[in-house]
Amino acid sequence: MQRFALIGAGFIGTVHAASLAAHPDVDLVGVHDVDASRAGALAARYRTRVLDEAQAFDASRIDAVFIASSTDTHARHLRAAADAGLAVLCEKPIAADLAEAVAVADHVRASAVPAMVDFNRRYDRDHAELRRVVASGGVGEVELIQLTSRGPSLPPLDYLRYSGGQLRDQTVHFFDLARWISGQDPVAVSVMGSALVDPAIAEFGDVDTSVATLTLPSGALVQIDSVRRTGYGYDERIEVMGSTGLVESRRQRRGNVARYGSAGILADGLSEGWFERVQNTYAATLSAFVAALENGTEPPVTLDDGVRAQAIAEAASRALTSRRQEVIAYP
Amino acid sequence: MQRFALIGAGFIGTVHAASLAAHPDVDLVGVHDVDASRAGALAARYRTRVLDEAQAFDASRIDAVFIASSTDTHARHLRAAADAGLAVLCEKPIAADLAEAVAVADHVRASAVPAMVDFNRRYDRDHAELRRVVASGGVGEVELIQLTSRGPSLPPLDYLRYSGGQLRDQTVHFFDLARWISGQDPVAVSVMGSALVDPAIAEFGDVDTSVATLTLPSGALVQIDSVRRTGYGYDERIEVMGSTGLVESRRQRRGNVARYGSAGILADGLSEGWFERVQNTYAATLSAFVAALENGTEPPVTLDDGVRAQAIAEAASRALTSRRQEVIAYP
Amino acid sequence: MQRFALIGAGFIGTVHAASLAAHPDVDLVGVHDVDASRAGALAARYRTRVLDEAQAFDASRIDAVFIASSTDTHARHLRAAADAGLAVLCEKPIAADLAEAVAVADHVRASAVPAMVDFNRRYDRDHAELRRVVASGGVGEVELIQLTSRGPSLPPLDYLRYSGGQLRDQTVHFFDLARWISGQDPVAVSVMGSALVDPAIAEFGDVDTSVATLTLPSGALVQIDSVRRTGYGYDERIEVMGSTGLVESRRQRRGNVARYGSAGILADGLSEGWFERVQNTYAATLSAFVAALENGTEPPVTLDDGVRAQAIAEAASRALTSRRQEVIAYP
Amino acid sequence: MQRFALIGAGFIGTVHAASLAAHPDVDLVGVHDVDASRAGALAARYRTRVLDEAQAFDASRIDAVFIASSTDTHARHLRAAADAGLAVLCEKPIAADLAEAVAVADHVRASAVPAMVDFNRRYDRDHAELRRVVASGGVGEVELIQLTSRGPSLPPLDYLRYSGGQLRDQTVHFFDLARWISGQDPVAVSVMGSALVDPAIAEFGDVDTSVATLTLPSGALVQIDSVRRTGYGYDERIEVMGSTGLVESRRQRRGNVARYGSAGILADGLSEGWFERVQNTYAATLSAFVAALENGTEPPVTLDDGVRAQAIAEAASRALTSRRQEVIAYP
Repeated sequence: MQRFALIGAGFIGTVHAASLAAHPDVDLVGVHDVDASRAGALAARYRTRVLDEAQAFDASRIDAVFIASSTDTHARHLRAAADAGLAVLCEKPIAADLAEAVAVADHVRASAVPAMVDFNRRYDRDHAELRRVVASGGVGEVELIQLTSRGPSLPPLDYLRYSGGQLRDQTVHFFDLARWISGQDPVAVSVMGSALVDPAIAEFGDVDTSVATLTLPSGALVQIDSVRRTGYGYDERIEVMGSTGLVESRRQRRGNVARYGSAGILADGLSEGWFERVQNTYAATLSAFVAALENGTEPPVTLDDGVRAQAIAEAASRALTSRRQEVIAYP
Repeated sequence: MQRFALIGAGFIGTVHAASLAAHPDVDLVGVHDVDASRAGALAARYRTRVLDEAQAFDASRIDAVFIASSTDTHARHLRAAADAGLAVLCEKPIAADLAEAVAVADHVRASAVPAMVDFNRRYDRDHAELRRVVASGGVGEVELIQLTSRGPSLPPLDYLRYSGGQLRDQTVHFFDLARWISGQDPVAVSVMGSALVDPAIAEFGDVDTSVATLTLPSGALVQIDSVRRTGYGYDERIEVMGSTGLVESRRQRRGNVARYGSAGILADGLSEGWFERVQNTYAATLSAFVAALENGTEPPVTLDDGVRAQAIAEAASRALTSRRQEVIAYP
Repeated sequence: MQRFALIGAGFIGTVHAASLAAHPDVDLVGVHDVDASRAGALAARYRTRVLDEAQAFDASRIDAVFIASSTDTHARHLRAAADAGLAVLCEKPIAADLAEAVAVADHVRASAVPAMVDFNRRYDRDHAELRRVVASGGVGEVELIQLTSRGPSLPPLDYLRYSGGQLRDQTVHFFDLARWISGQDPVAVSVMGSALVDPAIAEFGDVDTSVATLTLPSGALVQIDSVRRTGYGYDERIEVMGSTGLVESRRQRRGNVARYGSAGILADGLSEGWFERVQNTYAATLSAFVAALENGTEPPVTLDDGVRAQAIAEAASRALTSRRQEVIAYP
Repeated sequence: MQRFALIGAGFIGTVHAASLAAHPDVDLVGVHDVDASRAGALAARYRTRVLDEAQAFDASRIDAVFIASSTDTHARHLRAAADAGLAVLCEKPIAADLAEAVAVADHVRASAVPAMVDFNRRYDRDHAELRRVVASGGVGEVELIQLTSRGPSLPPLDYLRYSGGQLRDQTVHFFDLARWISGQDPVAVSVMGSALVDPAIAEFGDVDTSVATLTLPSGALVQIDSVRRTGYGYDERIEVMGSTGLVESRRQRRGNVARYGSAGILADGLSEGWFERVQNTYAATLSAFVAALENGTEPPVTLDDGVRAQAIAEAASRALTSRRQEVIAYP
């Protein structure tokens, strides 16, 4: 049984609270949030307690913390967990700034506490099955990976303004997937992007529609298209072409009903939003972390994985404006 | 808040316990089972109590009972709930014997307690959407309904021997769906069937592969094929052809991964079993019942619905041996 | 090189003329039709001659006749070909009346001329591949075959009045497919049917929507639904479930374009009509016949196949009114 | 009726001969080829004559020439047709060298003969329907176009060595489709590519797997992946995402059969090769050209379209080695 403190009672904290409460090997000791009333409501819902910050990192009562607070606090909470000797599962990114992320990852590594970054898409059933096919040689040598990441609607401009840009905020998940699927660290990246949905996005130097291309050490190529707003729901899919075949994690539909008429065949559309699409990955991610703690093995997604995805995003952000291939430097 | 007693702690009782425990408007007061240790284990898991039979029907502490005990006890428990003035949600069938089912339904109706039979497939997202399309005129006048019900593996012979036969045990769910989708009570039925999987089934007069055809009062036709064992997983689907189009609740696949190779395109197969396919309908069925209790409306699936589906199964069972169309008499 | 006379210059004769003209091993000597101007137009189009009836059966200039004239003349032309010692490929049915069909088939068999009935659906690429899978044991022992035959629009009432009824006119193709796929002759049939599209059809004792169920000697079942008018195009498909798997010849779509929008995913609909669906089977059927002639082997679809499909249609027609299973007697 | 001379009796000339012979408004006067015996064999097959070069461009007997000879002769034959006042349909490219292509296009334009380049993919039923949807506003403003071009097997190295490289030889068709679908001339291009299939390709500076990204004047993006060898057949598809939806011309499969078993659902794979996939576009392309001649309208694909696609391929070839975005200059 692992005793958890949950840090953060916002939207994503609420999601994680449900997973923590339902997990048979987890004792959710309490919830901490800078907004105590928000923490109180969430604690009440899952019949647990509100913790102040000291209590949340008290190693006499807590084994592990789940950091689901705002991005600017991740680094501080990670250091606190490491210093207290607590295992830690942290929402991405480790820190908004790459240099700070590297420093935190080094600090946590030095402390030797089990630590994991919450790249939940690795726990999507279909993506994991695709990777299994690739890893078992089912498509031969990897030659071309294509990833599609398209949200149904533009997040608020106030969010986007401080998000670090589409490549750091949205595409970073797919940089991680590319590494994870291929088992390789990309060496170069080029990017084209435009602000097509809202010209205001261009004013702060960001894009809402972009295409990134990466080269892997083997010469294999990776294509990632990222879109902030579609007119047809949430669209996420992956294809991996290898020397002997192709494997595809298809767009997921929201249902299996089809209507045949004179105009054609109208089937149920895609997932409504990203949350509906990835919802069931959160519990699986938590389970993987808890299993590692219970078994004393290394958590399967390391802080270094988080750092490396961020390093790709940095190079990609440079490539967007330099209009040339950028070499990716890993810290 | 509705205070529930759960009757039955076997496989399906365990499934319902999870739904009851998770429902925000339900207080699961306790669990009753003839096997007290089984009841105890389930009660412990959901932090509730074991009830003896008297406690389970004690109207001072219970508002509603969920009957998930063995089929031969359904009738007795339904009468007990009615006599105690408790709302009741009951697994199908009401009683193994049609005459007894009619008597119980009459008894419960006379008591005026809210009562519902657990035809959970009505709460399948896809089937419900199909019905919505039909009801809204999306395919015009209904002309031909096709239902497929195929399980992956033969249930134990000891179960089958006392199941009442494939038509009463398996197809009955689809007789209900046909009534529900069409809004009509079938008037005649013919059936062909064979024991192809295991000859022992024929020894007690049953079949494992059958095709039933029904006529609706409008002249529309219904086709139902029922299979006990496939080599490709659990296969359930519905098509409704009307005068202007067709709507289909497709076979559900267990995933969305496809592998392209020289031999063709290998996609993820169907649901492993019936439970994986319908699992998420149980909570929805419970929610509908609880909503009716909270709102003081009639439960959406009545005991009469249960009786009528059984009446069709009786006529179908006769048709299997008479080799001719049988007129369906509703009590 | 086989010298052919084409008998019949109507719609289907015109279709066959194109196949005959394009076949590298066929010399289309001429066209005969009771309407000489119609024959003339078709002959001109393919740069061949008009033949009178004597010329069409003149063995000194003709090796084979293709009978594509009206149904009531098939028997007479078949006898003429047999008497002249000409090979013969004949549109189904051999004769409208089963007894006459048997007599003609006997007569032709006695003459020992190569003779084939044009069950062109056997030469559909997808249906043939399905049969190959079944024949090679790809689904184990056959247990349940389902066939769907649905036209987009009601033929003219004047045609239907003299068609012999839906089962003899439309379903007969699928009785043949059931025999061909299973390699078995069905032993019993039951049918339900309704006149839902046009009440006038009921006036002459016919139906436009029907479901036939057949038993094979192995106990396997066959389901065939036949519909005269859909609101969504031409719908033909076959499924064969066996003891270890299922194989499906899917509905064919008219294109591969899909439109994703807020209302769902609108894909191209089904074939517009039966002709678009089966068009490419005619040349393949002809090729099989010509190959048999060139190689001196027996044509792969015999007149007896035609007789047997008609025998099933007769029993099915009886079952429609008797409301009971009818045993199928093969002459 | 248009009197045609066919120039070239190789593989693609043979394909075009069949279309010319079958077209009701075409009189195939004869065939010319540098290899007279090859011309003779093709002429015999379609009951037409062998022409020497003078006869092929003799305006007293010929209305139009179809240039299907080797690439290095296209320019000369185009000039000859223009000088003789003959309409001309020409296989792509106009000339291997862009400057020469521009000169020829200018020369032909000056002569005012009707001229068309054979970008046959524009006449693919699915691609044309996709474009129709886009042009009619079915997806709103175009934002992201994705094109996939993947052949099943590596062409011979001797062919590849003189092909001009993957971008000029293979991708050029898709540069044209991008222009045609969007109605815009791309302004910049970046490319990444690798020689993954055969290292010998790298020796002459070519790649076999590449990803090109283009920017349109509107800011919309285009992604094109080109692959010389897959392990799963010929893979061609197009997606266009706009501001309100997406339209897709899907991968075409070679059949519609699916096999359900314990390992999943095995469906028929993709087209075997590019020819099976695009075969039926040739006759449609010819028909469009003939219709323009008959109606006196401008042929729908101009030599300038050919020049512009080549101009994109030139910039793309530069971008492959410069590792930066290249601006596309149109002559």
